Amino acid sequence: MSAAANRQFKLARRPIGMVQRSDFDYTQEPVPSPRDGEILVKYLYLSLDPAMRGWMNEGKSYIPPVGLGEVMRAGAAGTVIASKHPQFVAGDCVVGMFGVQDYALSNGKGVTKINPQIAPLPVFLGTLGMPGMTAYFGLLDVGQARAGESVVVSGAAGAVGQVVGQIAKIKGCRVVGIEGGREKCAYVTTELGFDAAIDYKSEDVKAALKQHCPKGVDVYFDNVGGDILDAVLTRLAMHARIVICGAISQYNNTTPVKGPSNYLSLLVNRATMKGMVVFDYASRYAEAAREMAGWMKEGKLKSREDIVAGLETFPEALLKLFKGENIGKLVLKVAAD
Amino acid sequence: MSAAANRQFKLARRPIGMVQRSDFDYTQEPVPSPRDGEILVKYLYLSLDPAMRGWMNEGKSYIPPVGLGEVMRAGAAGTVIASKHPQFVAGDCVVGMFGVQDYALSNGKGVTKINPQIAPLPVFLGTLGMPGMTAYFGLLDVGQARAGESVVVSGAAGAVGQVVGQIAKIKGCRVVGIEGGREKCAYVTTELGFDAAIDYKSEDVKAALKQHCPKGVDVYFDNVGGDILDAVLTRLAMHARIVICGAISQYNNTTPVKGPSNYLSLLVNRATMKGMVVFDYASRYAEAAREMAGWMKEGKLKSREDIVAGLETFPEALLKLFKGENIGKLVLKVAAD
Repeated sequence: MSAAANRQFKLARRPIGMVQRSDFDYTQEPVPSPRDGEILVKYLYLSLDPAMRGWMNEGKSYIPPVGLGEVMRAGAAGTVIASKHPQFVAGDCVVGMFGVQDYALSNGKGVTKINPQIAPLPVFLGTLGMPGMTAYFGLLDVGQARAGESVVVSGAAGAVGQVVGQIAKIKGCRVVGIEGGREKCAYVTTELGFDAAIDYKSEDVKAALKQHCPKGVDVYFDNVGGDILDAVLTRLAMHARIVICGAISQYNNTTPVKGPSNYLSLLVNRATMKGMVVFDYASRYAEAAREMAGWMKEGKLKSREDIVAGLETFPEALLKLFKGENIGKLVLKVAAD
Repeated sequence: MSAAANRQFKLARRPIGMVQRSDFDYTQEPVPSPRDGEILVKYLYLSLDPAMRGWMNEGKSYIPPVGLGEVMRAGAAGTVIASKHPQFVAGDCVVGMFGVQDYALSNGKGVTKINPQIAPLPVFLGTLGMPGMTAYFGLLDVGQARAGESVVVSGAAGAVGQVVGQIAKIKGCRVVGIEGGREKCAYVTTELGFDAAIDYKSEDVKAALKQHCPKGVDVYFDNVGGDILDAVLTRLAMHARIVICGAISQYNNTTPVKGPSNYLSLLVNRATMKGMVVFDYASRYAEAAREMAGWMKEGKLKSREDIVAGLETFPEALLKLFKGENIGKLVLKVAAD
């Protein structure tokens, strides 16, 4: 395909189980031109998020599903290359939900200008973007984590998990990450300063939690669901809070979701399980991003991105999330900076 | 056995599945005499509660399990027949956790004097006792039910459920009860004034909830767990609260508890699932009981007890709870008033 074309992945069918390339139509169209009130954005980076799997399913959820035939929904960071919108000029760096393509037209709604001097663009899709906001509000607002408490986070080396653990450390909590594999566990303890990590692929999660959180788990930030959620439920402290952010272990099920068998631990421990969707905090994103950028500047908050190349590899790149192959925020590089 | 003996049911083994008579030793001892600081209570009524099943299991819970060889734990209402305690005199009517027997010695700890002119004694084991307190604090404090909201309660015709629904009506909520069988459904709608009842034995619970709570369920007070919890999860309103009070459908399982497969509805609806144990509200029982006695006097709060006779029938009487054979609070009459 020529560089001047706009390549697009459109949802062709609703996946059953793991996403496949054949679930999409990979097509191209001429690069469009903005009309009055619109901008044209050329992407540099596309965000790959576990939530995308849910957006492909039919049925009521926190946002409508992607329609069949529509460009697959995705966040992206790029540059405004043409503007007929009073609030944007060519050269502006922006992030928004632009979809899986090379270029996007937008009326500016939901588009945020970013300052590339604060951080490299991929960071605005991760730690200073939705995953970071999810971590910040999930941990502090929903989870109400307080200094001295034990915080456990699953998917600890992922885009959200890495931020959850570091904010918890900044707030004076004891932090234990749960991840799959030695490398990811080493990343969160050695590079990010978590107090401990549990490798669910080689350790007994319950026993390890007992060792690392002898007084029980005060806040559990759950990104994975399934057996790990059930294991943490057995180790709750009194008045524990479980933040239900996601359940990546269950998204590609072809059988019903595994409900948490140990949920009656909520009763025994007077504990709370609460669901969150980051969009509810949109009015406070700027405030959180400012605070987090400050932490990054001070070296208290690190951000790692796992950057893979080529829009054309989108379906396979997305699968890396569900295979647990990424460390940090998974980003698809679409064009040269 | 002679009337002057103290008959006792002691836990002989930990039940597997449904409770059986052979799980207890049924013995007798001479009626004891109080020492200094003690009272001797002669029972009139024994409380039969679903929670008793949990107390027979080994392992950590919200109170220690009943030890093997110990008199089975149970609430009871009776009369002080001898006192060497400064705060009690013979003739006082009292309730307390006296165990499954005819007479109990007590040092007065956890014993509450009751006024039989306010209500018949069995009511102090139900609506003005633990089940009533559970309903009151669970609905108002944990569930935060507010006027105009849709409240759903399972085990609706049981000791707790009947009170939950009536308090919700008093507070201006729309109330839907879930129960098994026509008679119980008719009881909560016709006698207690619930807006609707769903017979889970003959109706599709999801479809019925859609009909009766078209805007979704704001508060779900769960006494049963299992499939009914899962059905309600599909019909939550935004910011719904689920009060986890019990899970009677799961207490006699010989397989693992069925976790709620639809728990990700908590995320979609930013909803909360919170466990409660009534003991946490002990300091406020008196306040709640006063308010509830007032409602009873005004005719706004009705109380039904299902009274069965004979301490010797204890194991079989207890099973009525798990077979769903009781309407209202199940009470075992131990001796003539």
